[in-house]
Amino acid sequence: MTLHDIPTPSAILDAEIFERNCERMKGKAAGLGVALRPHLKTGKCLQMALRQMTSPQGPATVSTLREAEVFFAHGVTDLTYAVGITPSKLPRCKALIDAGCSLKVILDNAAAAKAVSAFCTREGVSIPVLIEIDSDGHRSGVPAGSPLLLEVASCLEGGARLAGVLTHAGDSYKCQGAACCIAAAENERAMAVLAAERLRAAGYAVPIVSVGSTPTAVFARSLQGVTELRCGVYGTFDLVMAGIGACGVEDIALSLLVEVIGHQPEKGWIITDGGWMALSRDRGTASQSVDQGYGLVCDIDGKLLDGLIVTAANQEHGIIARRDGGAADISRFPVGSRLRILPNHACAMGAQHPFYRVVRLGVEVVDTWERFGGWYEC
Amino acid sequence: MTLHDIPTPSAILDAEIFERNCERMKGKAAGLGVALRPHLKTGKCLQMALRQMTSPQGPATVSTLREAEVFFAHGVTDLTYAVGITPSKLPRCKALIDAGCSLKVILDNAAAAKAVSAFCTREGVSIPVLIEIDSDGHRSGVPAGSPLLLEVASCLEGGARLAGVLTHAGDSYKCQGAACCIAAAENERAMAVLAAERLRAAGYAVPIVSVGSTPTAVFARSLQGVTELRCGVYGTFDLVMAGIGACGVEDIALSLLVEVIGHQPEKGWIITDGGWMALSRDRGTASQSVDQGYGLVCDIDGKLLDGLIVTAANQEHGIIARRDGGAADISRFPVGSRLRILPNHACAMGAQHPFYRVVRLGVEVVDTWERFGGWYEC
Repeated sequence: MTLHDIPTPSAILDAEIFERNCERMKGKAAGLGVALRPHLKTGKCLQMALRQMTSPQGPATVSTLREAEVFFAHGVTDLTYAVGITPSKLPRCKALIDAGCSLKVILDNAAAAKAVSAFCTREGVSIPVLIEIDSDGHRSGVPAGSPLLLEVASCLEGGARLAGVLTHAGDSYKCQGAACCIAAAENERAMAVLAAERLRAAGYAVPIVSVGSTPTAVFARSLQGVTELRCGVYGTFDLVMAGIGACGVEDIALSLLVEVIGHQPEKGWIITDGGWMALSRDRGTASQSVDQGYGLVCDIDGKLLDGLIVTAANQEHGIIARRDGGAADISRFPVGSRLRILPNHACAMGAQHPFYRVVRLGVEVVDTWERFGGWYEC
Repeated sequence: MTLHDIPTPSAILDAEIFERNCERMKGKAAGLGVALRPHLKTGKCLQMALRQMTSPQGPATVSTLREAEVFFAHGVTDLTYAVGITPSKLPRCKALIDAGCSLKVILDNAAAAKAVSAFCTREGVSIPVLIEIDSDGHRSGVPAGSPLLLEVASCLEGGARLAGVLTHAGDSYKCQGAACCIAAAENERAMAVLAAERLRAAGYAVPIVSVGSTPTAVFARSLQGVTELRCGVYGTFDLVMAGIGACGVEDIALSLLVEVIGHQPEKGWIITDGGWMALSRDRGTASQSVDQGYGLVCDIDGKLLDGLIVTAANQEHGIIARRDGGAADISRFPVGSRLRILPNHACAMGAQHPFYRVVRLGVEVVDTWERFGGWYEC
């Protein structure tokens, strides 16, 4: 079975490229002397997780408790749930911990710290807590130098054990080029280490100092004082990452297989069955120096077709045209011909699909890997 | 069980509002003297489909063959697959037709017409075909006045039976206000009727004249010459539809239940667990006169909280702030408090969820309705 035979649209994962990317990041973390705790939120897929992690038990990072529950059920025991915890989610954390999962949670405020402490006392459970540090003003976290940091730490009592600090250089996604990413990586490191040192100076043990984003992970020169690296999209990469300079287009492991369903000859449009439902609504390259529309167009073998992008997308229609506004040579792409689209954002595109069809630098479909979504069983 | 108890984020469907919207559109179609063939792509949910359709057997419209297969398996027999057909999808169409489904396909080019004809001859099957008309330059379709229309019709032979014409006023999504929508509706009608009349003048029977989009369906004053109305998002509506003027904000039946996970006090940010994974990446209101960010913020009862929108979204984080840039009164929204977000685009938000939690003008969860996604079984 090949990419010529399977239904369209289909999410295609090139396992050879994916594995190469995974091995490169393992080498990078080892070279920097830190543990790799890959984020599994991009793939939400056991086979991908097993290739990202340094052991089948982890460590790993997740963005939802459902990811924690599914991966734990498949043997991943060392997990950090890297979105601020709230009281209503604590019973699910306890269930995982009671079942043997080494689950760590994060928080950035006194209210959450008090709630976790009270829950642990009431339920007789111990929950390791990382304090989230805001290293670049991107979204959540306590500023590394703020009095709030020590206040939050002081609210952790009993079973709510301070296990360390964690930050994510979310603003590195706005970088373009090495210099910006190198600076973002150093800032991310420095802020995490500053927070850890302030806590240690106040008498706390801080075993875990966790940083990570793919742009900073790719460009980090030193992670002195850091204990672990979290990053996720480096496995598949995508056009946003290529625009940042964190990868080349040839490193992108995820694509969408589409079929030509018609044309608008006068406009030079090629219309396919790959719309935003299959590509996602992500337009992350719109704010970069090269706007890739809804994606770059390749032939079925994955070779870039110069100058063609998905200029517009409806739910189940993608419109391919020349980036420069000129008419595409539509005679090269008759109805029924197949193309592959490189996506802006792998996390967003992956989320639209129940499975990945796996190839290895070719068109033969060698496997199908399931993907899960959602936030809880119902 | 109420909205205070269920996990977050959760897609919430207010069945009372949904049913009211469905009944209103049934009345509108009946008043205009046309059949209602609702598009089921927004909900992808049997319980929603049953409320949209005028009978449990249909008629209905779908955007993927998987929708056709799933709804047919649940008893919906009169279906139009309203995305241009390609040769590779014909065996799945045949399987549905052989099983008793009255499935109609669409196409807009001679190559597809010849392929359907050849397939029908080879396989001994009859497939009703609608020719897609481009009424407003939005994406696919043959211009109603073009010689291509008759050329495409002439390529339909044998079992590939011309059943009618179909158009979709996609450009009506760019309207704001009644006048633009009324004009778009009249243009959509006129172009479909023109195409039908040209075909009839050339000797073809054209039993079906199909139009539809929610903005034009809401505002159509006459559908003379049209036989059926297709529209989909009118069941839930959303902020894009409200911005167009096709509904009021109080008509929006779909929302996202989120929980506050933290704040950035100095910025006046409220941070929730409702990110773009749960809201979708759709930013359809960005090009309207009022940009709603990633959504409008309501309290848990669904009452609008004036001036608050989701200004930014990461994968599992939503940032709520004042629309006017001022600091929100974050003391009103402590960690653990719950809010509901009205989405830009119901089709896109729905796609991120495996089920809808159903309420009826309140916070009691009275049911859970499954939703499906994907393009094929594997």
